Amino acid sequence: MFMQSPPVERLLESLRRLPGVGRKSAERYALHLLTLPPEISEEFSAALIAARRAIGWCPLCKNLTDIMPCAICQDPKRDCTTICVVERPTAVLAIEKGGGYRGLYHVLHGVINPLEGIGPEALQIDTLIERVQKNDVKEVIIATNTTAEGEVTALYLAKRMAEFGIQATRIAHGVPMGGGLEYADDVTLLRALEGRLPL
Amino acid sequence: MFMQSPPVERLLESLRRLPGVGRKSAERYALHLLTLPPEISEEFSAALIAARRAIGWCPLCKNLTDIMPCAICQDPKRDCTTICVVERPTAVLAIEKGGGYRGLYHVLHGVINPLEGIGPEALQIDTLIERVQKNDVKEVIIATNTTAEGEVTALYLAKRMAEFGIQATRIAHGVPMGGGLEYADDVTLLRALEGRLPL
Repeated sequence: MFMQSPPVERLLESLRRLPGVGRKSAERYALHLLTLPPEISEEFSAALIAARRAIGWCPLCKNLTDIMPCAICQDPKRDCTTICVVERPTAVLAIEKGGGYRGLYHVLHGVINPLEGIGPEALQIDTLIERVQKNDVKEVIIATNTTAEGEVTALYLAKRMAEFGIQATRIAHGVPMGGGLEYADDVTLLRALEGRLPL
Repeated sequence: MFMQSPPVERLLESLRRLPGVGRKSAERYALHLLTLPPEISEEFSAALIAARRAIGWCPLCKNLTDIMPCAICQDPKRDCTTICVVERPTAVLAIEKGGGYRGLYHVLHGVINPLEGIGPEALQIDTLIERVQKNDVKEVIIATNTTAEGEVTALYLAKRMAEFGIQATRIAHGVPMGGGLEYADDVTLLRALEGRLPL
């Protein structure tokens, strides 16, 4: 059958690389793409190439951007003394959606993971250190994820920032707003208790 | 932000055309594609074009295929006197997975839908009639979906087949195998009762 032909297998392999897409979804997407009029699948292909070429890394914060430096780094209204360090561009999008944060960002593009051979030199840590040395940065907020690797990276960054006399802080972890205590997991509850603040 | 830039918007629009993909999933896919190394997104793009070019419609059954005529139409072991008519190539894949059907197929590429201006002439019905006239076809099994449009198309096809003295049959509708009666909807139950067979 045509689904096993090499060109279709190649397309399925590409589709399976998308986050959360397994064999079944890839097949569904492939069948859809193959039944579309050729000009639409060609437009898809061209759109992907065009977007990939138009978007690069901001030379300062390493976030994805279509202008250099990125809109956030260029914005004179942002507070240049605070840098929020995140793992991935998606985290910047999530924080920006809230709209409450007015500082700058720095995207590490990963976390320290010795088991996978990812050391600090493979991440955008040197560029962060360069930034805090060159500019008048007062606080670095570490917003890596709460995985083991995210925590290790946070501790590593805090140590490095201390070398340059810069205050490193970690975002608060606790019970989500609007979430009942009964729905929070044990670790989150423990963190919420440990991180209690005076009223 | 870069997610609102025209090239990314264009990519999001293409991604949203995939079945079951909304704004959120499209954003997740786009972000992933944009963070991949350029050679991987270029491979994706090339794979899509290559697959689209390699796959065409079988000149006989109108199913998607990488060889002309398709593997099923070419197979000498298939029963050429029986044609199963389906709406889409996905239906052929579904029936072939079962492995029990040994006849040929015919893909309509849609159903009659007067509200959307889709008449019989927009579907692969003329090519089906040509096939049954040219070949020694004894039975046409109509396996369009059980939507209003699918049923209308089935009735239309049965009438046309009668003109050429060919037996048109409809696949059975009833309670799914292994499914309890309590889970079947009213229409399915009614169909199951109407379609009862002597034991």
